[in-house]
Amino acid sequence: MVPLLKHIVLVKFKDDIAPDMQESLIQGFHSLPGHIPHIKAFEWGTDISAENMQQGFTHVFVLTFDSSEGRDAYLVHPSHQEFAHKLLAAVEKVLVVDYNPSPVQCQ
Amino acid sequence: MVPLLKHIVLVKFKDDIAPDMQESLIQGFHSLPGHIPHIKAFEWGTDISAENMQQGFTHVFVLTFDSSEGRDAYLVHPSHQEFAHKLLAAVEKVLVVDYNPSPVQCQ
Repeated sequence: MVPLLKHIVLVKFKDDIAPDMQESLIQGFHSLPGHIPHIKAFEWGTDISAENMQQGFTHVFVLTFDSSEGRDAYLVHPSHQEFAHKLLAAVEKVLVVDYNPSPVQCQ
Repeated sequence: MVPLLKHIVLVKFKDDIAPDMQESLIQGFHSLPGHIPHIKAFEWGTDISAENMQQGFTHVFVLTFDSSEGRDAYLVHPSHQEFAHKLLAAVEKVLVVDYNPSPVQCQ
């Protein structure tokens, strides 16, 4: 069975990116599944951690692909590339990690 | 309705932490749900991203709590504190972000 692939994107916008521009970029990110069917699930939120170990990152986006090939197709998709170009121009930092999720038993 | 809270931990072990010690720490992390019922789901994996934006992080752990109070109880739980002390001694860097996941519509 091909394992799922989860793709985590952490973002810190530049200080001079106004809230409405940030919102526009977030909406742009949210529009990608409408163009790229390889995205099977997508959730996001703003950092609410309590340990002060977020290193300045404020926004979390988690995309799920059904294979690494799906992720690869997303990365080179023109809609993603156009969006990524805009996003990268607006961020002070970005961090991306991908993983095949293995479950850990809980009670 | 109280929103779920997801807690992402990214880790890069110190270079001198041997693979079996890394494995022991990973297993220690995996044992926490047996002690802390506030952890409602837990998945993990190693970084397989393709964009070279992982900033050295190699391991991803994602815990789900059913509220921020559950997360708070986890943070101060003696089993977590004992584990976190061991983990922090073994890592070159660690990053933690928490978020209330909002779903984005997919096809």
